[in-house]
Amino acid sequence: MNKRNIAILGATGSIGTQALDVVRAFPELLEVSVLTGARNVALLIEQALEFRPKAVVITDESAYKTLKEALAGTNIRVLSGVDALVEVVTDPEIDVLLNAIVGAAGLKPTVVAIEHGKDIALANKETLVVAGELVMGLAEKHQVKMLPVDSEHSAIFQCLVGEEQNPIEKIYLTASGGPFRGKGRLDLMEVTKAQALLHPNWVMGAKITIDSASLMNKGLEVIEAKWLFDLEVDQIDVIVHPQSIVHSIVQFQDGSMKAQMGVPDMKLPIQNALTYPLRMQNSFERFDFLKYPTLTFEPADQETFRNLELAYSVLRAGGDRACVLNAANEIAVEAFLNDQISFLGMSDLIEATLCQQKMVKQPTLNDYIAIDQQTRLVARDLIDKI
Amino acid sequence: MNKRNIAILGATGSIGTQALDVVRAFPELLEVSVLTGARNVALLIEQALEFRPKAVVITDESAYKTLKEALAGTNIRVLSGVDALVEVVTDPEIDVLLNAIVGAAGLKPTVVAIEHGKDIALANKETLVVAGELVMGLAEKHQVKMLPVDSEHSAIFQCLVGEEQNPIEKIYLTASGGPFRGKGRLDLMEVTKAQALLHPNWVMGAKITIDSASLMNKGLEVIEAKWLFDLEVDQIDVIVHPQSIVHSIVQFQDGSMKAQMGVPDMKLPIQNALTYPLRMQNSFERFDFLKYPTLTFEPADQETFRNLELAYSVLRAGGDRACVLNAANEIAVEAFLNDQISFLGMSDLIEATLCQQKMVKQPTLNDYIAIDQQTRLVARDLIDKI
Repeated sequence: MNKRNIAILGATGSIGTQALDVVRAFPELLEVSVLTGARNVALLIEQALEFRPKAVVITDESAYKTLKEALAGTNIRVLSGVDALVEVVTDPEIDVLLNAIVGAAGLKPTVVAIEHGKDIALANKETLVVAGELVMGLAEKHQVKMLPVDSEHSAIFQCLVGEEQNPIEKIYLTASGGPFRGKGRLDLMEVTKAQALLHPNWVMGAKITIDSASLMNKGLEVIEAKWLFDLEVDQIDVIVHPQSIVHSIVQFQDGSMKAQMGVPDMKLPIQNALTYPLRMQNSFERFDFLKYPTLTFEPADQETFRNLELAYSVLRAGGDRACVLNAANEIAVEAFLNDQISFLGMSDLIEATLCQQKMVKQPTLNDYIAIDQQTRLVARDLIDKI
Repeated sequence: MNKRNIAILGATGSIGTQALDVVRAFPELLEVSVLTGARNVALLIEQALEFRPKAVVITDESAYKTLKEALAGTNIRVLSGVDALVEVVTDPEIDVLLNAIVGAAGLKPTVVAIEHGKDIALANKETLVVAGELVMGLAEKHQVKMLPVDSEHSAIFQCLVGEEQNPIEKIYLTASGGPFRGKGRLDLMEVTKAQALLHPNWVMGAKITIDSASLMNKGLEVIEAKWLFDLEVDQIDVIVHPQSIVHSIVQFQDGSMKAQMGVPDMKLPIQNALTYPLRMQNSFERFDFLKYPTLTFEPADQETFRNLELAYSVLRAGGDRACVLNAANEIAVEAFLNDQISFLGMSDLIEATLCQQKMVKQPTLNDYIAIDQQTRLVARDLIDKI
């Protein structure tokens, strides 16, 4: 494999820092062209001085001066603001964009990178949740690879290698069930922020951890999987697997199933996306059956965790519904983390927002961005009315 | 895929009859050129009249007349005897040999078919157990595919599709543990034939069912896997998985594992071998997680089930040791089924035979056949001395 130049959006986050560990491990294969961060300017400076990218971006414009001064005397371009994310991904030397931004802000840089022929290592699931049909259409048109970084989608992707000619019958996305697995709605009425932030198996950022507790994360993954693997809604099942060892499963039309397994460690799907189709030797922890003698599976409880049901219903409805769901959920999680609404109130807010926003059947990219903004206003407005 | 002409050796056995179900399901893809049976002449006649192969063979020569008369007036060639198996597989119209004969008798037809450029769908594990290095060398030389039919090896094979460039770190062959899982040597002293013939998950012929109860089947599979997938002995692990849902697992050098799963049904690996690389749609039972909410794994007990330890040790020793182990085991199983030796006595007999037979380091095909015959005499002689 030729050396790959990578742009990492969200370099200072959980996925970004682990991606840089992977780059450190394979300097003969991977090189960093661009690093971007949201607010953590100290870490971004450190990363820039170590990896010497061509450009860095801090989206928080108030941190620009600090970053610029720290990198004075290097030949690293320093930019700030959200628009700079779109500009830096167009550099001809970039081969792969690792998009590890959280939220719908990830959409535009992905689209622009695809239009410039970059392969996409996609950790920003909102790209496909918001505009899956549009993004996958562009990826096909520009012949770029969509390399999933989510552990579940990476698992499906790994199981599909070499099976291009074989139709999928269904897929099972596994879910840990989060910290509230087995609880009913009554229990969830009293859930605190601290409890929701304690994920049993995965260490992740706050937004995705809350989404995991509410099963919205799994709902977003169902939507993402539909577009990534070109499936009908009924071909996607969610199965709760508390040990998070089986990362997901494909069932082919002959009834044979392939599963990808391992200890829960995001570095593996990150490495897989960055070095695909090669599986590079590493020293990550190996799975040991004797430590996990029992793997269990149970149905997902969509009555308690209404977010999952909402995700399936917006996927069936089509149009801009998933974009609205996603934007409303971002506001809902923010409001929950700010103690403005309760844990169960998040689903209520999303549902109310979906009702208020009129359906748009065939949105363009600009429509999606406008709908996303508009939805946030509607959702915030609904919170103020509570 | 072009229509494939298949020769089925062992058509009247468990694998053979299921293979014919697969042929029935895909008449546009599969056609039968040759059918052979050992003794069940009535079934062989029925199969011949339905599938109209070019040739049939009954190895039991005393049944030749019955077969010949029943097929009079058809243009099916009728042959008998073991040598005829070797003759019929050379027909230029044959694309694939499905070798579903039980025991070391399967070796020679496989070798001849490879030399005539036929792909091999291998259910006869003894072919590789006895002469794995030689057979795989020939397969490479003649550029034929070795398509495993054993559920475990089929699982590994399925997991390796599209991963040709990625080194295997290790494989886990799963074992149901058989009817005596969890028992100690004291319990096994009193085991009866009827108990040993009751396999918990798979319906198979008598020889392989006894081998499953004694874990020799798993031992033979370890040896087969070494040659089929070009592994070192230490890269092959056996893990007991009583539900027989995970059929086997590959761990790559990045630590990622791929498993193939499904309800235990030999028709799936048979279909997979015959229609590879296509996965044809079928109506086999689908796996349902809600029926199997718990999958368990435990180490294999090599102290109680000494056959597994013996298999690993002959594989480490090399030369003709696996050939001797296999022949001694065939005699041991026969003697157990004839009430001549006890269940635990089988391992003792195999070990004693290995001690008596001097090591041959680099046997030729004819050496293997001679060693196999010689070993049987030695083993029978040892039984008579008990």
